[in-house]
Amino acid sequence: MEKPYVLGIDIGGTNTVFGVVDARGTILYSGSIKTGKYEEINDYVAALAEGLQGVIAQAGGKDKIKGIGVGAPNGNYFSGCIEFAPNLPWKGTIPLAELISEKVGIPVALTNDANAAAIGEMTYGVARGMKDFIVITLGTGVGSGIVIGGNLVYGHDGFAGELGHVIVRREHGRLCGCGRYGCLETYASATGVARTARELLINRTDESLLRSLNPDEITSKDVFDAAQKGDQLSLEIFNITGKILGEAFADFVAFSSPEAIILFGGLAKSGDLLMKPIKEAMEKNMLKVFQGKTKLLFSQLKESDAAVLGASALGWEIKEAVEI
Amino acid sequence: MEKPYVLGIDIGGTNTVFGVVDARGTILYSGSIKTGKYEEINDYVAALAEGLQGVIAQAGGKDKIKGIGVGAPNGNYFSGCIEFAPNLPWKGTIPLAELISEKVGIPVALTNDANAAAIGEMTYGVARGMKDFIVITLGTGVGSGIVIGGNLVYGHDGFAGELGHVIVRREHGRLCGCGRYGCLETYASATGVARTARELLINRTDESLLRSLNPDEITSKDVFDAAQKGDQLSLEIFNITGKILGEAFADFVAFSSPEAIILFGGLAKSGDLLMKPIKEAMEKNMLKVFQGKTKLLFSQLKESDAAVLGASALGWEIKEAVEI
Repeated sequence: MEKPYVLGIDIGGTNTVFGVVDARGTILYSGSIKTGKYEEINDYVAALAEGLQGVIAQAGGKDKIKGIGVGAPNGNYFSGCIEFAPNLPWKGTIPLAELISEKVGIPVALTNDANAAAIGEMTYGVARGMKDFIVITLGTGVGSGIVIGGNLVYGHDGFAGELGHVIVRREHGRLCGCGRYGCLETYASATGVARTARELLINRTDESLLRSLNPDEITSKDVFDAAQKGDQLSLEIFNITGKILGEAFADFVAFSSPEAIILFGGLAKSGDLLMKPIKEAMEKNMLKVFQGKTKLLFSQLKESDAAVLGASALGWEIKEAVEI
Repeated sequence: MEKPYVLGIDIGGTNTVFGVVDARGTILYSGSIKTGKYEEINDYVAALAEGLQGVIAQAGGKDKIKGIGVGAPNGNYFSGCIEFAPNLPWKGTIPLAELISEKVGIPVALTNDANAAAIGEMTYGVARGMKDFIVITLGTGVGSGIVIGGNLVYGHDGFAGELGHVIVRREHGRLCGCGRYGCLETYASATGVARTARELLINRTDESLLRSLNPDEITSKDVFDAAQKGDQLSLEIFNITGKILGEAFADFVAFSSPEAIILFGGLAKSGDLLMKPIKEAMEKNMLKVFQGKTKLLFSQLKESDAAVLGASALGWEIKEAVEI
């Protein structure tokens, strides 16, 4: 009997959201639990399994589910483990894929959230039909999922695709959460945009709408709102951010020559404010042979659904692996 | 009847070398022609075909040859063309794979020289059994061949893997042959090493064996010889070169997390002089999750044979494609 659905689980620091998804990318039944409420991983898995049973029952039972895909910070596809995730309650290495699969009786695959986003774009999103592309997630941090020849790049250890941590400023670079200096993430994430705002406000004296705010509390959203109103300093912050991203993208293209680079996540909602300077810097910094070839696209998946859809897409892949 | 051999052709600006190779990577019969002698591509192909007929006859006829692999500067795997190669006599786009295959009656695959080196390492060299690795060729320029999941990375257009042209110095970078500034190649190639030597000799006043040479004629070999004799300035040139390579490698690892990075080409013969500072800088600049995992290796293929072996390995792949 054909199994028509997959189940996607997106694990965030605050909430764990899950849903039953059909082949067209419609979330049919969904639910959520509070991730932070469960200090003990076994309590978490028990609560999650209970939630999953609910949506599985709605879908007509576990015989309808081809596989479960999990997107989680620091998730390793090869081991099925979450490994030392700083923003989750459980320390060390957690064999989450195994724990869930034992409880629920459905095969489970797990990867990190950016990889899940890339698989989601390939299965349901703007990357349908593409074999070579890169998804860049612009949120609190900068993540990436790289697809080459139709396959997600996991590397020899399952941790490939950390493009938020390539060094874009070798000298006087910003301190990153990873302990190093000058990572792309320190400039191009939502928090990076806020850092740029604080830096410009301190170093300069020109007027700006941002000066009415408490500098320590400025967010990328504040910068976006001010830029929308034509605030010059805020527009410049987007230009700086876009330029750094575009320069980095030109190097990524020299590596894998993708058909498209797809922007995903909160900051990607800035639209042309960000896209224009990215495109300009990317083309300007690109080796001639690549110029004008790589598309820059925004994810079109509804943001509230995208994480679950991305994770669920991994569920179809399990099925394929089993069929071989 | 099983075909026991492949034929490899390495096209350089000066010579074109070719050889019949068996499954163990032994070059059984070989020959060469002068590339530069033929201004007309048809004359070149005619002369090459004549040379190939010779070794094919020695091997027992074309029924013994599974396929022909060609490694050429600016060779595109997808199109089988050499496209705008600055160091070859023929301008524009040359459909070389087709031209050779028509003349000789054996299927031909073509790629650039660095990709051929990577396939050679995977088939006959230190990368046997590896599915994820990067070959960096350190010659007059810096090239790269990237293997992910056992497949060479060609990108959506066939031009992926231009790691010699990632930008390692965004400010005050050296002018590259590609027209941009700060490319890895301008520092880490043999000519880059000579440039570093000239720069240090001008900017500093300390004694060095290199000061007895005409600065305009210094080569990386001169720097190597002086370093071998303990010349401090020359040792420092290798440290600078290795540091820049190691920093770049740390970023490459963040992309594809390879099991190994393999050094190939003239400059790779510098051994520990280069390897030590590369390793140090790579580990120091690597994201924690990758530290201590990526092997740094030298190609073990005999340099005179490596280019032909690498190209020939592509010949086995054609066979596979036909079999499907």
